[in-house]
Amino acid sequence: MVENMSGQLVQPTIERVAGFRVAGVHCGIKADSQLDFALIVSEQPCVTAGVFTKNEIKAASVLLNAERINHNPDGIRAVAVNSGNANACTGRKGLQDAQVTATWTAEQVDCRPEDVLVMSTGVIGVHLPMDKMRDGVNLAASALGDDWHAAASAIMTTDVYPKLAEVTVDLGGGQSVQIAGIAKGAGMIAPDMATMLSVIVTDAALTVEQAQAALRSAADVSYNRIVVDGDSSTNDTVLLLANGASQVAISSPEQMATFQAALDAVSMKLAQEIVRNGEGVTKFITVQVHGAASDEDAHRIANTIATSPLVKTAFAGEDANWGRIVAAAGRASARLDADRVALWFSPGSGDSDYRLQLVAGGERTDYQEDDAAAIMREADITVTLDCGVGVGSAVVWTCDLSHEYVSINADYRS
Amino acid sequence: MVENMSGQLVQPTIERVAGFRVAGVHCGIKADSQLDFALIVSEQPCVTAGVFTKNEIKAASVLLNAERINHNPDGIRAVAVNSGNANACTGRKGLQDAQVTATWTAEQVDCRPEDVLVMSTGVIGVHLPMDKMRDGVNLAASALGDDWHAAASAIMTTDVYPKLAEVTVDLGGGQSVQIAGIAKGAGMIAPDMATMLSVIVTDAALTVEQAQAALRSAADVSYNRIVVDGDSSTNDTVLLLANGASQVAISSPEQMATFQAALDAVSMKLAQEIVRNGEGVTKFITVQVHGAASDEDAHRIANTIATSPLVKTAFAGEDANWGRIVAAAGRASARLDADRVALWFSPGSGDSDYRLQLVAGGERTDYQEDDAAAIMREADITVTLDCGVGVGSAVVWTCDLSHEYVSINADYRS
Repeated sequence: MVENMSGQLVQPTIERVAGFRVAGVHCGIKADSQLDFALIVSEQPCVTAGVFTKNEIKAASVLLNAERINHNPDGIRAVAVNSGNANACTGRKGLQDAQVTATWTAEQVDCRPEDVLVMSTGVIGVHLPMDKMRDGVNLAASALGDDWHAAASAIMTTDVYPKLAEVTVDLGGGQSVQIAGIAKGAGMIAPDMATMLSVIVTDAALTVEQAQAALRSAADVSYNRIVVDGDSSTNDTVLLLANGASQVAISSPEQMATFQAALDAVSMKLAQEIVRNGEGVTKFITVQVHGAASDEDAHRIANTIATSPLVKTAFAGEDANWGRIVAAAGRASARLDADRVALWFSPGSGDSDYRLQLVAGGERTDYQEDDAAAIMREADITVTLDCGVGVGSAVVWTCDLSHEYVSINADYRS
Repeated sequence: MVENMSGQLVQPTIERVAGFRVAGVHCGIKADSQLDFALIVSEQPCVTAGVFTKNEIKAASVLLNAERINHNPDGIRAVAVNSGNANACTGRKGLQDAQVTATWTAEQVDCRPEDVLVMSTGVIGVHLPMDKMRDGVNLAASALGDDWHAAASAIMTTDVYPKLAEVTVDLGGGQSVQIAGIAKGAGMIAPDMATMLSVIVTDAALTVEQAQAALRSAADVSYNRIVVDGDSSTNDTVLLLANGASQVAISSPEQMATFQAALDAVSMKLAQEIVRNGEGVTKFITVQVHGAASDEDAHRIANTIATSPLVKTAFAGEDANWGRIVAAAGRASARLDADRVALWFSPGSGDSDYRLQLVAGGERTDYQEDDAAAIMREADITVTLDCGVGVGSAVVWTCDLSHEYVSINADYRS
């Protein structure tokens, strides 16, 4: 569920977004009758921005999308997404398969092939089953409507539930626009765009520059702040499509700030849901670092804590083993003052008034183990570390490392 | 077991090393009657070198030893080691406790306090139980002898078995020296000296410069090449003590090369045993990377593969999921040619003639899944990656990530 900007809870579904139609279908890439193909179509050409994986090994869809958004940033009409197969490490044929998928989609949607983007997620190194992809395109095209829940379900891999978020943005003067997004995550989540797909749509009328700047800024405070296991993938992509169907443009800095805050909120909610739904997750952990030499240092320390298997297994075991957190911070290649380090645990996601201080001046306080244990039993826990050297700060969201994670990932392909 | 330089197998114990006496005793820091205190004493002052953790948070013993070796590199007489308590994040009192332990040891050994080094390993953030430490010093001092097995056992934490290695080095002209070492590892192993203690002794007569250069070089090809979980600790220390009891000096470049090779072999053996004995380890994995832009790039890629939870869980599940290896390589912040990447699996530790090629030119070969599965069932597996860009190479040793690892680390303190 998502809080909209006026504070009301929105149900975990997306109402109609003007000018967009979607579908999620089963075409046989995944077993049983699991949904495995989604289509998102705009009646009008969209201004489109993309943020992609920084992995040196990029999936065919990433290469294709980056090029198309570069050459055609205001003409995108559709995004075709399959799950169950990443179409990565598939060479020239992989790139052709992505192009063919886009061309089939263009025929159904009645646009040019270059107006279509594609996304894939799943196993690496296996060619797409193109007969099934063809079925997927046709089935999805004939099912287009407002079933965002089906579309969000069709892009899942090991996700337990579909992730949707939506917000209505009041821009003043009786003008409002909608922002809605879906995402998939689960394993392989790390900063710098881990195995993660997300499509965000809006009926706002954005310029190309506005869309690119807004998406980059939103990704920096959301998708790039989450860590499940420190791995990043070949396929990570976040897209923002603005079709202008509301006929509301963003014309003042104040409106842009309002729009950005709403886009950030949708992105953060989707990113946090990805962590909560991470493989084998039993705890949602907010890592706050302050007092660092710079924001970059703080981010590096927060990431190192959030990636440490020793820290993550301690949370899974509900063990307040703060020494592992301090030790992880110490190896982040960032400055720390060993004699001034301080550490607190608190329940919740950084929103609790109650904090238990475990470390002060680099040493254990006289806290009671029972008080720490009580916080460790919470599903949402916040760790706050003061580095004692400056004013840099950062927040990262992560999760524990449980037996379930090992089970899922030891047997993923079998 | 260790192969000595003439190829014979040496039993997993250490014979008498001239001029050194050791002991391992139980003084009550650990529960039951587990050995938890070791003493290594030299009759003569030793030329001593140390390599320490790069973690910003350094245990009291690390600070003490670095200073003492710096000021007194040729006068060290004893090393006192306790397990069960890391004496890290313990502030000024922690440093005093380390000094007092050294002073008590000096009284027993009849040397100056500054001639004694101390090492600690175990839980972080708890003050040393000094009454028990006092018992440890006294008990160990009265038990000094040749029981290296007891000494190696007394420094263990979650290690399953003690790790010892020994070699006799033939320097030509009828001259020979001995090198022997003990180590402890288990969890928290990462490059740059992870939670790992090792003491290597030799009866060779080394200069301070020889000892420092030799140990640094040996650490670079051994302790800094192993990865269990990517975490590094506050306490990592490797010491080399040379007491000159053999009255054999290293006087030619050829002799130094021979000595270095032997020291490297002892260090590599101990380092590899640390990985084999890592927490919950069921597979020993050798990661060979070549064709990188530089050796540094190759090392970075090998480390990223070896640290990836997705790669490590796939090995635990005996799943030949090479896509995860390529994806991990791709996010190492090092150059890769996506169209030229090649990957092989082979049984053993880099010593097999048989290699199965899974990836060529960035794509899956037509290998048979059964052949890959057969290799994955081996206890020792080698992964070889060609980056396709240059001539840089590196080797890293690591292990799988199993349910057992999670169990051990979720419940470590309970």
